[in-house]
Amino acid sequence: MIFNVLTLFPEQIDNFLGFSIIGRAQENGLIQLNTVNIRDFTDADDKYRKVDDTMFGGGTGMLMKCEPVYEAYKSIKDEQPDTYTVFVGPKGSVLNQEKVKELASKKSVTIICGHYEGIDSRVLDEIVDEEISIGDYVLTGGELASCVIIDSVSRMIEGVLPNESAYTNESHMNGTLEAPQYTKPQQWHDRKVPEILLSGNTAEIEEYNDIQSLYETLIKRPDMFDKLEITDKKWEKLLAFMRSL
Amino acid sequence: MIFNVLTLFPEQIDNFLGFSIIGRAQENGLIQLNTVNIRDFTDADDKYRKVDDTMFGGGTGMLMKCEPVYEAYKSIKDEQPDTYTVFVGPKGSVLNQEKVKELASKKSVTIICGHYEGIDSRVLDEIVDEEISIGDYVLTGGELASCVIIDSVSRMIEGVLPNESAYTNESHMNGTLEAPQYTKPQQWHDRKVPEILLSGNTAEIEEYNDIQSLYETLIKRPDMFDKLEITDKKWEKLLAFMRSL
Repeated sequence: MIFNVLTLFPEQIDNFLGFSIIGRAQENGLIQLNTVNIRDFTDADDKYRKVDDTMFGGGTGMLMKCEPVYEAYKSIKDEQPDTYTVFVGPKGSVLNQEKVKELASKKSVTIICGHYEGIDSRVLDEIVDEEISIGDYVLTGGELASCVIIDSVSRMIEGVLPNESAYTNESHMNGTLEAPQYTKPQQWHDRKVPEILLSGNTAEIEEYNDIQSLYETLIKRPDMFDKLEITDKKWEKLLAFMRSL
Repeated sequence: MIFNVLTLFPEQIDNFLGFSIIGRAQENGLIQLNTVNIRDFTDADDKYRKVDDTMFGGGTGMLMKCEPVYEAYKSIKDEQPDTYTVFVGPKGSVLNQEKVKELASKKSVTIICGHYEGIDSRVLDEIVDEEISIGDYVLTGGELASCVIIDSVSRMIEGVLPNESAYTNESHMNGTLEAPQYTKPQQWHDRKVPEILLSGNTAEIEEYNDIQSLYETLIKRPDMFDKLEITDKKWEKLLAFMRSL
């Protein structure tokens, strides 16, 4: 899968995604990251390579101009005509794991990062397939958001994670939060690992973690819990656990 | 304001936040970023400086151990006893602009980043004031999430942005999405800047942008629109605009 990122800060993206699992996925050729500096597509006669200008109708701050964004986009689109073009911005639909899976099915995704006050609306209207927001908060630019999309989507690609079970149990993969997890030592300060996890009884452990996962979801994200379909048997066990607290 | 970040990948954070507005805010001493490598707090006798171990009860992948996380935390807490400790993880309450403002009122925030399968629950239960998630998707580690928090919170600190109006008009600052924005040239391809924005009539422009902002919110984020309180006069103008399309 190819990710193209159009940005004024390509190093910021390259640095960030060079680490850990996503860095290795690039080395192994499972994903290809191609950052394009929008500034390279400004007017060559302009020695300042000016990418932004003031806004019509007033308003403080600078807006990125249509032309350099469009030319940067064209440089990708000409080579990858089927690329899916995403603008990461505050007005987009909010990213969730469903959308992540959907993006992971594309062969090529081109992400456009705004900076400063944003980008002239006209070029976005012309070239963008979908606007995506990573959440309801204000960020300095689209660079962090594009890293979030590339990290989350890459993890869905076969071979990127060491093995499949490592991601099916994660929080948000099946609409629940994961059970609390423990590693050595068995006792740390006055806190002990729950006995059952030391038992070696795989079926009981699975059932225990299942109920813990439901409990975590109920307490911490009631909005997610409301969307779950829970069998009567599981309800009973969840209530029994809660009575035991 | 001081941000401490406990992580296995301090360079990833330092690199990312060295750019643009947040980089300048550090240079100007408006914020202080202090990354701490959790690996430095592993057992010095262990030549591999092992920070993680297998999970009790089975499950694939490795979990970060209590002790190095606790010792890294202690190194900060001893110096900054009032620091507010945040774990960025998938079970947290979801970050929004309200929470960003709340965090901006703290003098010191310490962010703990998990990696791999996460961190032993016991140390989190012991030291964390609040768990925050940046959205309902799965990421490789807490590093991106901590950058999102630091970027969004820093923007709320006086002096970080060039002037105040630059952030009061942004999407999500007052529960709406911002109006479309335009810069030079007046015509690009077959797309023109709306006439009214060229008029110089500040009051009319403000009213126009206000209605555009409501329209964007209604179309793109009906969930946000539902929460707005809109005067009868504005409703009338919004409906008139929609009839004109």
